[in-house]
Amino acid sequence: MFIQRFEEITILTNGIKLILLNDSIEKFVKISEIKKGILNLSILHTSASLIIQENADPDVQKDLINFYDKLVPMNNSLYIHSTEGKDDMPAHIKSSLTNTNLTFSVKDHKVQLGTWQGIFLFEHRLERQKRKVFLHIIGEK
Amino acid sequence: MFIQRFEEITILTNGIKLILLNDSIEKFVKISEIKKGILNLSILHTSASLIIQENADPDVQKDLINFYDKLVPMNNSLYIHSTEGKDDMPAHIKSSLTNTNLTFSVKDHKVQLGTWQGIFLFEHRLERQKRKVFLHIIGEK
Amino acid sequence: MFIQRFEEITILTNGIKLILLNDSIEKFVKISEIKKGILNLSILHTSASLIIQENADPDVQKDLINFYDKLVPMNNSLYIHSTEGKDDMPAHIKSSLTNTNLTFSVKDHKVQLGTWQGIFLFEHRLERQKRKVFLHIIGEK
Repeated sequence: MFIQRFEEITILTNGIKLILLNDSIEKFVKISEIKKGILNLSILHTSASLIIQENADPDVQKDLINFYDKLVPMNNSLYIHSTEGKDDMPAHIKSSLTNTNLTFSVKDHKVQLGTWQGIFLFEHRLERQKRKVFLHIIGEK
Repeated sequence: MFIQRFEEITILTNGIKLILLNDSIEKFVKISEIKKGILNLSILHTSASLIIQENADPDVQKDLINFYDKLVPMNNSLYIHSTEGKDDMPAHIKSSLTNTNLTFSVKDHKVQLGTWQGIFLFEHRLERQKRKVFLHIIGEK
Repeated sequence: MFIQRFEEITILTNGIKLILLNDSIEKFVKISEIKKGILNLSILHTSASLIIQENADPDVQKDLINFYDKLVPMNNSLYIHSTEGKDDMPAHIKSSLTNTNLTFSVKDHKVQLGTWQGIFLFEHRLERQKRKVFLHIIGEK
């Protein structure tokens, strides 16, 4: 029998950083009791995003942050939209280059991920933020 | 009881621009009568894409267009594929940097979006185009 | 009646290249016997990705590869994470700029794609690799 479960989780952030979500996601899948199905994640913001990345060497996360910072500089003279701070427009652009939604397969109660894959919230703002991620699973017990 | 509904919508575009799709999408979800489910959007082109962005300040859209235009210049000397116009290869690249498919959660008959999130068609070609977006919802009434 | 089918396919790669997956995907959809539903693809790696691109002119693929190579240079001095080779960190970044998951609609036993849309595995590493893509369909016969 097909069923659906929802949950909205809140993540407190403090500056530009990648925050691993795997534990929260696995817990949600476990509680849902769904054995096989589709898992959808949506971040409800346009200045933070979702990203799948290597979960082994933390330097990968530093390099990612550096790359996006160089590609989308925090320099107000480059943007028309500058009233919300030098990090706001770059945050929107970085979000558009990464993901707002991600969809995974669940099989045998497990999210199908490669050995090194971590699911991260990618915070693009400098100040503390309260971020909401919507988790949704549809499938069979 | 789980059901599915489909619709293909056509959007006429006229140059590089972001076109808000929220109204068409909400109408589709309402007509489907599905209370909770998964909504999938697919744009059936490789020179226009889908993007989620801030829906408040229109300057954000201008800055996004500027950023992508600078990152992927319309300059035929940069590309091998140049017979379809200076905007064609940049359009393919910009599409690859943004999204062709987006998947959302629907709860209480509403697409789960943050307060400021707009779902946009991002047109990357200079000439008038007829764009098709495929809407699909699977869920329960 | 709603059902689900899974399959994990393995693709052998040999250097930076786009590899068309349409045939494997269509075969999977056909065997599933699902007439309408949602198809989810996940690549189980962080140094190769999924991309939807024009399937007509092969020069488009060359230009895409060139663009991403210029945007994310294979130059170890640019990255902290450099022990796995000059192509490894760029591979992670290119993956983050494209897709790890893609979700499509299936209608009348067919993946809803535009005329020119090809679904590709985008290999970002220089050496031979064995890549796994997880296919998952949920829908009705």
